[in-house]
Amino acid sequence: MTSQSFTVRPIGVISTPWQTIAACPRNGRQPNPPPQCSVRVFPEYVEGLRSIEGFSHLILLYWLHQAKSPELVFTPPFDAQPRGVFATRAPRRPNPIGLSVVAFDGLEAPDTLKVRHLDCLDGTSLIDIKPFLPTTDCEPGASMGWLAQHATR
Amino acid sequence: MTSQSFTVRPIGVISTPWQTIAACPRNGRQPNPPPQCSVRVFPEYVEGLRSIEGFSHLILLYWLHQAKSPELVFTPPFDAQPRGVFATRAPRRPNPIGLSVVAFDGLEAPDTLKVRHLDCLDGTSLIDIKPFLPTTDCEPGASMGWLAQHATR
Repeated sequence: MTSQSFTVRPIGVISTPWQTIAACPRNGRQPNPPPQCSVRVFPEYVEGLRSIEGFSHLILLYWLHQAKSPELVFTPPFDAQPRGVFATRAPRRPNPIGLSVVAFDGLEAPDTLKVRHLDCLDGTSLIDIKPFLPTTDCEPGASMGWLAQHATR
Repeated sequence: MTSQSFTVRPIGVISTPWQTIAACPRNGRQPNPPPQCSVRVFPEYVEGLRSIEGFSHLILLYWLHQAKSPELVFTPPFDAQPRGVFATRAPRRPNPIGLSVVAFDGLEAPDTLKVRHLDCLDGTSLIDIKPFLPTTDCEPGASMGWLAQHATR
């Protein structure tokens, strides 16, 4: 089972204001106001955007191509204790897939979405777009574990 | 750019009550009460679970291994119009990655998480675990586009 693998192909590319990892915000809700970012879908996938206009928020999955090799346990810079990577949103994951819930501000071209609340590098490969559904994706009362003491929106 | 690809490796395996696609619920909030499911992390990744206990909800990413070939536009069974796959949560995506926000009921063994609100097949490959953070992942007022008319929690 563990020797199995799957192939992921980019479906588009993300444009953000951030050219280096050091410049990226800690999360997509940190910048105030959040800068507009854009997401361009490659021509062969544009048809898949049909009916996306009515959603106010989307979930984007992307490949963290500049993440270093996975690190299962590490001490976050703002914390005093070692934490498991699955209890963090850090990029050095076994599968370096990033996830952001973004505000969707409409299409700026048939292949390009305007979004806010990204925190990834300019040029990041997009691997999926999903509609955000408050009926299944939203748990306002969720507890934040060890991150609670560091929570700042 | 489009010829590039990335390799995803399973980090564990998901156990659910559903043995066939036909038996799977439409989404993880549909079954009432939601059955307990379990997620076993392979030995080489167990260290990455450190500090996960305090989170009430997690985001699981998994590989929809039984999804048929991608279908960019299709007419959902409960709808009258063709929709783009990126405006749906259907499994026939260019990259068949499933996402569920699950309630986390603790560890039943050092390598096994008890969760609720999954909707995937028994034996599905787990590819990531992220803590669910209401500060960045939750938009209670999000609009549901074409799905609004079909929304049932």
